[in-house]
Amino acid sequence: MRKFPHCVLLTRVGGFYEMYFETAEEYGPLLGLKVAQKKISAGSVSMAGFPFMALDRYLKVLVQDHGKFVAVSEEYPNPEKGGLLFDRRITRVVTPGTLIDEHFMDTSESHYLLAVAAGSGTGSDREIGLAWLDLSTGDFFTQETTMGGVRTDVARIGPKEVVLLGAGYWSVGESGLEEIFRREQYFITPHSVDAEVMLREVKDWKDVIETKIGKATMKEMKDIEVRAGNILLDYTQTRLPGMAMRLQPPVRKTMKDAMIIDSATMRGLEITRTSRDGLTKGALLNTIKKTTTQSGSRLLSNWIKSPITSITAIEHRLNLVETFKNDNYLKQDIQGLLKRTHDSQRLLQRMSLARGGPRDLVGLAHTIQITQKILERLNSEELTHAASIEQLTGDVDVPLKLAKRILGSIDEEGLLQNLRIEESEEEVAAALAEADEAIARVDYHDPAAAIAPPTTSSSTSKRAKVGPKVGRRMLSEKDMERAEAWIMQKSASKALERLHGQLGDLEQKRLDLEAELTKKIGCAQSLTLRWTPRVGHICHVKGKDIDLDHRAITGATRVSASRSTMSLQLPEWTELGIHIDGIRTQIRAEEQVVLQSLRADVMKSLSVLRKNASVLDRIDIACSFATLAREQNHVRPLLNLGVSHKIVGGRHSTVEAGLQGQGRTFTPNNCFVGDRERLWLITGPNMAGKSTFLRQNALISILAQVGSFVPAELVEIGIVDRVFSRVGSADNLFKDQSTFMVEMLETAEILKSATPRSFVIMDEVGRGTTPKDGLAVAYACLHHLYYENQCRVLFATHFHALTDLAKPFKGVGCYCTDIIEDGEGFAFDHRVRPGVNRNSHALKVARLAGIPDGVIEVAEETLKRLDASVQ
Amino acid sequence: MRKFPHCVLLTRVGGFYEMYFETAEEYGPLLGLKVAQKKISAGSVSMAGFPFMALDRYLKVLVQDHGKFVAVSEEYPNPEKGGLLFDRRITRVVTPGTLIDEHFMDTSESHYLLAVAAGSGTGSDREIGLAWLDLSTGDFFTQETTMGGVRTDVARIGPKEVVLLGAGYWSVGESGLEEIFRREQYFITPHSVDAEVMLREVKDWKDVIETKIGKATMKEMKDIEVRAGNILLDYTQTRLPGMAMRLQPPVRKTMKDAMIIDSATMRGLEITRTSRDGLTKGALLNTIKKTTTQSGSRLLSNWIKSPITSITAIEHRLNLVETFKNDNYLKQDIQGLLKRTHDSQRLLQRMSLARGGPRDLVGLAHTIQITQKILERLNSEELTHAASIEQLTGDVDVPLKLAKRILGSIDEEGLLQNLRIEESEEEVAAALAEADEAIARVDYHDPAAAIAPPTTSSSTSKRAKVGPKVGRRMLSEKDMERAEAWIMQKSASKALERLHGQLGDLEQKRLDLEAELTKKIGCAQSLTLRWTPRVGHICHVKGKDIDLDHRAITGATRVSASRSTMSLQLPEWTELGIHIDGIRTQIRAEEQVVLQSLRADVMKSLSVLRKNASVLDRIDIACSFATLAREQNHVRPLLNLGVSHKIVGGRHSTVEAGLQGQGRTFTPNNCFVGDRERLWLITGPNMAGKSTFLRQNALISILAQVGSFVPAELVEIGIVDRVFSRVGSADNLFKDQSTFMVEMLETAEILKSATPRSFVIMDEVGRGTTPKDGLAVAYACLHHLYYENQCRVLFATHFHALTDLAKPFKGVGCYCTDIIEDGEGFAFDHRVRPGVNRNSHALKVARLAGIPDGVIEVAEETLKRLDASVQ
Repeated sequence: MRKFPHCVLLTRVGGFYEMYFETAEEYGPLLGLKVAQKKISAGSVSMAGFPFMALDRYLKVLVQDHGKFVAVSEEYPNPEKGGLLFDRRITRVVTPGTLIDEHFMDTSESHYLLAVAAGSGTGSDREIGLAWLDLSTGDFFTQETTMGGVRTDVARIGPKEVVLLGAGYWSVGESGLEEIFRREQYFITPHSVDAEVMLREVKDWKDVIETKIGKATMKEMKDIEVRAGNILLDYTQTRLPGMAMRLQPPVRKTMKDAMIIDSATMRGLEITRTSRDGLTKGALLNTIKKTTTQSGSRLLSNWIKSPITSITAIEHRLNLVETFKNDNYLKQDIQGLLKRTHDSQRLLQRMSLARGGPRDLVGLAHTIQITQKILERLNSEELTHAASIEQLTGDVDVPLKLAKRILGSIDEEGLLQNLRIEESEEEVAAALAEADEAIARVDYHDPAAAIAPPTTSSSTSKRAKVGPKVGRRMLSEKDMERAEAWIMQKSASKALERLHGQLGDLEQKRLDLEAELTKKIGCAQSLTLRWTPRVGHICHVKGKDIDLDHRAITGATRVSASRSTMSLQLPEWTELGIHIDGIRTQIRAEEQVVLQSLRADVMKSLSVLRKNASVLDRIDIACSFATLAREQNHVRPLLNLGVSHKIVGGRHSTVEAGLQGQGRTFTPNNCFVGDRERLWLITGPNMAGKSTFLRQNALISILAQVGSFVPAELVEIGIVDRVFSRVGSADNLFKDQSTFMVEMLETAEILKSATPRSFVIMDEVGRGTTPKDGLAVAYACLHHLYYENQCRVLFATHFHALTDLAKPFKGVGCYCTDIIEDGEGFAFDHRVRPGVNRNSHALKVARLAGIPDGVIEVAEETLKRLDASVQ
Repeated sequence: MRKFPHCVLLTRVGGFYEMYFETAEEYGPLLGLKVAQKKISAGSVSMAGFPFMALDRYLKVLVQDHGKFVAVSEEYPNPEKGGLLFDRRITRVVTPGTLIDEHFMDTSESHYLLAVAAGSGTGSDREIGLAWLDLSTGDFFTQETTMGGVRTDVARIGPKEVVLLGAGYWSVGESGLEEIFRREQYFITPHSVDAEVMLREVKDWKDVIETKIGKATMKEMKDIEVRAGNILLDYTQTRLPGMAMRLQPPVRKTMKDAMIIDSATMRGLEITRTSRDGLTKGALLNTIKKTTTQSGSRLLSNWIKSPITSITAIEHRLNLVETFKNDNYLKQDIQGLLKRTHDSQRLLQRMSLARGGPRDLVGLAHTIQITQKILERLNSEELTHAASIEQLTGDVDVPLKLAKRILGSIDEEGLLQNLRIEESEEEVAAALAEADEAIARVDYHDPAAAIAPPTTSSSTSKRAKVGPKVGRRMLSEKDMERAEAWIMQKSASKALERLHGQLGDLEQKRLDLEAELTKKIGCAQSLTLRWTPRVGHICHVKGKDIDLDHRAITGATRVSASRSTMSLQLPEWTELGIHIDGIRTQIRAEEQVVLQSLRADVMKSLSVLRKNASVLDRIDIACSFATLAREQNHVRPLLNLGVSHKIVGGRHSTVEAGLQGQGRTFTPNNCFVGDRERLWLITGPNMAGKSTFLRQNALISILAQVGSFVPAELVEIGIVDRVFSRVGSADNLFKDQSTFMVEMLETAEILKSATPRSFVIMDEVGRGTTPKDGLAVAYACLHHLYYENQCRVLFATHFHALTDLAKPFKGVGCYCTDIIEDGEGFAFDHRVRPGVNRNSHALKVARLAGIPDGVIEVAEETLKRLDASVQ
């Protein structure tokens, strides 16, 4: 344990994982385990444990829910010490970033482990290397960035765990790095490495990379990325000492082709989670996600956090979407096919970790065949953008032979049965004891026979749950036969063919023996040759009022008898039965040989299969966007190299969905910010949709550059390099930051980083301080955005004076929302029109919210007094 | 399924729960299950399933993570249809509120299911009945409230699921009810009941109540509470048709003794979760929780949401805390003892649902004994407030005899072994098949013997994981012997004594036979009589180069042989072995009889045990508060009937903890709001701790009235009937509410509800609109709070003009925070001092946040221009 401090140590002892001492006392109750006192010679030891099969359930609680590190110590037979003694060593340290393939992982998102290395330079220009991987898919990336950009990059990656160089390596700059990640509440692990590790080069990584690393990658990769990669791989290997890790060759991410969305903007625009309560429901991703596969969903979630800036690439994506949008039957067919694919990336990763079983192989084979069907379906028709489809699928190579070999070898029907058997073996054992009791109850008229009906909980007594029926069933002839399901076809190898031949012969002998014996005992009884767990090989005789003298069969011994059944042991059958079992065992072993060879074949086609999987993901996303476009009436955006937005009838997808849920309609709005009016200053009453308007235009830009159609009537957008938002507000007392401080931190980031290609939305900057100070700060920001950053800006404010101060600026347009009053009441007009609205109608909103009339009257009087004092 | 629409149906088929058709297609992937196509005569059916033992894992994902309803259909043998056919019926519909005792439940919080009934009256005065229960503890409560108060009451209860009358019963008022709960994001279930159900009276509930319902309760309970109770019980019973539900008698909650904290205040003060990200870390409860037991933690979490107003009761609680604070050794001893108790409430509930096993009984018995030790320890010393201790523990009746009987009957050592065996039976079965292969590998030199080392995942192939060693081990003599552990002492009943006597005799016979046979075969070989799962009862011979002719033993048949071992079947041993097994089976059955009788004994002492458990919980909380007081230097508050706060040197627990984490110190502040100055108007720069000051005084009031010591030097508080807070801000676009709207909704609630006994904190009311409107609204609120509500108010604002407007109010005190400047820089002075600070120092904060110098300069110039234009 000295090597793995701060870990919860789980020690494998036989069929259990156990915790001892303080660990047992602290985590036992947390996991709902009984903590027992075990008496040993030196006193008493606290211990708690659970069956090894339940490991993933407990890992989830410890690692995912409580953020603990768990060290798993396995046992290995030690031949020198004798058969019952074991060596133990830690095979794995489980952390949030080193989960491999657990049941509880959400496969619709990536599980990245990220390492960060800091290089030379100072301040925000200091160079930073990033390297990250997903153990469940084998994805591996590196990127070069700077201290100033690291927060944004990491927000995009969204790692489950961040590894930083541990004590001894810290310089001031690097602990500043830690501060950044702490603030964003990442799970941080310090990790110390030997100097030797830091000197490794990319080519030294080849042991853990499944195919060759490209020359270009080797050449282009910066030293600082290599250092981050060294930390990442060293960390992963120390966490998985018992596993041969296989990764895809590293892919370098360069941000020059990406639209950058920083973490505050991600939160403010509610791209993956809502800002109010951090839920995925109500966030953009959730609203637009119509993907069919889990891996498509993973890719979409990565795309939405990192839109692109290349018009060619965007047009390519849009072409695919349009193709599927125009041909709905095609889309439905493709989605139907995609639904039947398996998650190849994860299957392949399992194979390369030597964890893949026959079911995984079958899944892969079916996926290969469906890939072929998808290609055929795509070629069967006149497509809107055949060239784009061709570009995507042109050089896809479908290893149909491999699929054929797998499906020709593996017996799917047998596999399905086997799945049942394997899993029910868990139950069979529990039933063994129970079967005894059940029989006993009948025989002895036991008072405890009034057993409770089976309950559905898995708590307390397992025995009570199994119930007598399972026991009886388990012993039935039928189930015994089922237990012989094979996973491979008889023809899968020469050896298998031979063995199955032998087995057939022996089974015939058994039938012959059965017939012979049946004849011997006469027709009143039926006889079967069986094997039972309790007494081994027996002849089972059944009939009404058995009057058989077992000595009629030479050599038979009576084992048990009731009025209507009798069991006999017969050396002849025992010997034959054992022979049959021996052949069966050989068949199982031979099946493993075939399995190994199939797995080896898959590994040969690894890069082809990986590539095909990524093509399917892209098709899935295109279909998803096409579905969305049809359902929500989206249009294809036009992208150009200008710096204008031209959005006609734009809408906000999630707000519109929320309103529709209440039976209300959304008011679309235009937005023409850019050349002529680079900055829109928006005023208007509360509740009239200013914030929604701001966000919808940012979201439309993001959707367009992800390659999706957009919620509007007509959209032409000059490519945006970064989107910024300063919206909402919340203080953070625990971290000693006031509302105003949070607002200024985010604003400073924008003023320092926005370029003429950027798109900025600012909502009510200057709140949380005195009105005068707030106005001054707001004006100064507007001034800087207009003259220095020169980007497109939507600026909503309650400071009407700001419109007066900004009058000298030629390229500032003033727009507003309003309230429509009629005789009896009023309604919010969500239309954005040119002009300034100096009336916030705050009191109307206050009255609507239920503020007592008396209070409204006082407020009205106060307003009059304030107006009077100004004049 | 017609009875249970919208449910995910899980059908038990043998050892599996299965899903079919669309359900399989939709939820299979979500649960990570393979969806298979099963061919039936009519075509192909999609299906997915998992072993029944994994039910709770999948329930967690479906119910807790995804908010689905799950209907569980069990199978029952149907004798008429024959042994292998089953009837199926739904025994349980699992919803977030009807979880019973699952492994994954967080036992440190309550799991309430709440039903709401609406009665006569209109608007906010309409009467509302509440009834709620926790199936895991059997707690059952009712309460009468009004439409206006229901949101606050429900926030206090914190139900996992809310049941409302379903379609057909809705009136306008009740759908308003639904709207309230939807807004707070509760999980809502509509439930329709028969008219007959609604007419039931309290006495009709007796079938599901474990002891008698008190006469007083029957008499006092309002009709509307009974109606809510009827809905609640009807709903629960339809969800658990297969279970005999047992609840504690209903307890009526009346809010006249409680300090009310509404949901906005709960959020704003971060009592159970932080408002920024909804985490428990950084919230009050988490900071003060030092309880030792899970049930103490549950009670504390209920207390903190519902402080009390009776000075006598508070003083009683404080006396307990002081007693433990003064005597640290006593406290440590008591906490040490509490640590060893089990969660009686949950154990008892399990008993009353007939789910409790021997381990639960032992846990209960130990808890009884420890209760006695706690009482003894408490009486062993001169206590600071002996009278309060006596009042709490005076009439505790400890059923020591029951504990003695349980511990005298159950064999704890055997139980511990049995726990292992039962759980490892899951594994044994999987190992059976594996054992074959392992042996085969050795015998046949099979190439597949190079099997992978055991991995720790539970995915894919279970076979590969079990590994050969488990198989070998499982078959070892040692494990077979272990399998005979009994759960009851031999002396636990006459029948057991007799059976164990018989077993002893038979075992002696076995030894004799073994000796006799060993003699027969000579000394070169050793012989043991064994049972193995493969061949039943055998004589196992072992030795170097066996040269035994098995015919030396009359009647023996050779089953298998290697160079050093041989297995024989011998009718004599087979018969004896089967006889031994028969006796064992009888013993197991008799053990069940004893178990039943012990369970019955426990049920007789149920109400005593329930009561003792609640006394332990109160002791746990008192110790928890004492620990807190010592660690964080708290003082005992004085409570009186006045309407003033006198807090000297008050601190904010969580903020202080956050600062300490950064090595900084917290600045304490005084607060004397009440008689002389009923309203404090607080101004000052950003970041100087206004919000912290406001919240800490509200939190000190809450802590004091929960009965805890408080973070301050001296505290005297006039009892508070309600605490209100209006702090922080966030809009909710999805629900179409702007920041200002949210603020006004919460403010309206305060203005309508605060009484002269209330304590209100308001932080920057009037943000999110034009400065003039904001000022007018803020002034009007202040006016109303001062003249109408007449409560204690701390009012922080950036509108300095407000201090001028409020000058005529006699009882308003002006206080402020400030910045300390020296030659080089500045620091925030968190001290609150009398006066008005008209300088917000916003630009200093902006500069600190990294706003570029150019922007600051423009802002400074603008400020000068604004000042000039005013003059």
